[in-house]
Amino acid sequence: MSLRGLGTEEIFERAVAGERRALGRVLTFIERAGEDADIITELSHPMGGQAHVVGITGAPGAGKSTLTGQLTRLLPDLGLRPAVLAVDPSSPLTGGAILGDRIRMDDMAGDDVFIRSVATRGHAGGLALSIPGGVRAFDAVGYDPVIIETVGVGQVEVDVVGAADTTVVVVNPGWGDAVQANKAGLMEVADIFVINKADRPGAADSRRDLDLMLDLSHVTGQERSSGYRPPIIMTTATEGTGADELWDAIHAHRGHLASTGELDSRREARHHYEITHRLEQLVSAGIVTALAEDDGAMLVADVAAKRISPSQAARTLAKRLLR
Amino acid sequence: MSLRGLGTEEIFERAVAGERRALGRVLTFIERAGEDADIITELSHPMGGQAHVVGITGAPGAGKSTLTGQLTRLLPDLGLRPAVLAVDPSSPLTGGAILGDRIRMDDMAGDDVFIRSVATRGHAGGLALSIPGGVRAFDAVGYDPVIIETVGVGQVEVDVVGAADTTVVVVNPGWGDAVQANKAGLMEVADIFVINKADRPGAADSRRDLDLMLDLSHVTGQERSSGYRPPIIMTTATEGTGADELWDAIHAHRGHLASTGELDSRREARHHYEITHRLEQLVSAGIVTALAEDDGAMLVADVAAKRISPSQAARTLAKRLLR
Repeated sequence: MSLRGLGTEEIFERAVAGERRALGRVLTFIERAGEDADIITELSHPMGGQAHVVGITGAPGAGKSTLTGQLTRLLPDLGLRPAVLAVDPSSPLTGGAILGDRIRMDDMAGDDVFIRSVATRGHAGGLALSIPGGVRAFDAVGYDPVIIETVGVGQVEVDVVGAADTTVVVVNPGWGDAVQANKAGLMEVADIFVINKADRPGAADSRRDLDLMLDLSHVTGQERSSGYRPPIIMTTATEGTGADELWDAIHAHRGHLASTGELDSRREARHHYEITHRLEQLVSAGIVTALAEDDGAMLVADVAAKRISPSQAARTLAKRLLR
Repeated sequence: MSLRGLGTEEIFERAVAGERRALGRVLTFIERAGEDADIITELSHPMGGQAHVVGITGAPGAGKSTLTGQLTRLLPDLGLRPAVLAVDPSSPLTGGAILGDRIRMDDMAGDDVFIRSVATRGHAGGLALSIPGGVRAFDAVGYDPVIIETVGVGQVEVDVVGAADTTVVVVNPGWGDAVQANKAGLMEVADIFVINKADRPGAADSRRDLDLMLDLSHVTGQERSSGYRPPIIMTTATEGTGADELWDAIHAHRGHLASTGELDSRREARHHYEITHRLEQLVSAGIVTALAEDDGAMLVADVAAKRISPSQAARTLAKRLLR
């Protein structure tokens, strides 16, 4: 079972054959974003496209992990093999406990479930590539659905989770939570709302708030797809209440996407997003090189000496770099 | 006093002459990052370089705003005119209350103090440019020091605040806070540590933790400048205790930078950072155009149809885009 001495292709083959350690290694390759990651992309891209990609987002502490955990316990009984890509908050300053919980959860996962944590520290732009790469790998080796779980605080996180086939936004009862989700841009990407901790006071008020906001967005034409209104699911994730109803809503949304042709357009948008970020990465390498070369260093010195401004320096370098 | 009908140059001149509303407008231009921002950059770049740029960072709730507030009350009595650029967290999901506090603080600021909040929503990359731009504007119109205050949770925030002349990292008493700051990459950028809420239990332990970490980083050669060991200042910002000692430490660090020539190298690093991000912005525009054109759209379709992989598509576009 050792992977020692195996090439990237062989490790990928073993992952496809169902070897968990090999899949873990494949995901590590993707996160490291080197030559191995490129090989995995070439191998996995033609094989995917089956998995239903579900994004789950919301504020820290809303109960996303617990809810995701409930889904992963529920789905194997329905004959499904769920995989989870859990994006931990950008900084250990706020994310220590969350990562600790997660590692325990990884250990508990049975054979039909694969849970992977993706730390974002030092991977600001990397996240935009490692998430689609991870989804593609899970998809290629036969996991379905693939759940992306992330705290909806950064633009990249909102973009990534908003590019799922089905996006679930989790809020809690209490004044203002729905309003904050709206301000954070989560309202626009939600296909399904979950009010988690629905046993707490204020759950009915939150539901009314959300309903009102959905009415308004309907009037102004902000909804994402015609003829579809995001349902609101009440859950108490710590007790497992509502998880089955949530899965039914996710499944129903998938049906809607397929019947309207919107599934294809969402996937095209995902490809567009990934290609853009890959291109940015390739170009960034060129920028670092340009600035490290002699005339790059001279331009920085010119800026420091106030002979030119930073924007002039950037324009000069852009002319040299771009066609 | 109306700015109506004035051109960008005239508004900038009025800001230099001390008109607060004009300076507010100048900062808005910079945040909007358009043609006006470029004009401001050209005008302000040759005038700056005097202000001491101080970065203050730490976890949410550590007391950075209160501490900054104490400094801004203290400094005018020393004949200084401080300006503050306060970067609010990326998402209203976590930052609502903070912004509320801040607005009250803006109102309270006297004539010798200028406080500006920079919201980051939808400005992921923009922050990397609006902060240096804001610092430059404050510097040009005569504010000194310029304090950048930000929650140290994202890479951009750490980069920005770490590129200050003097970087202050604020932690609280309690097990693990210093350890978390270390993990978040804040240890490496700290020139001064503050243990705020020092009246709480555990302050002495936190000091010991930090001291130990500084000993270790000294051994492994991680410290930023030779012959300098970051001091640890104990403060209780809500009562103003320790703010004067903090300012003394900031002032002493500035002296160290000037005497070792490190001030110049830090500023050069700032220029390097800014030019890199300006260049990335110029190139991003090219990427959007390339993907919007006919062959860009065709490449996306090829990826969707699995004729090529996303990395192949990106490489093809890079070849067309770059020299």
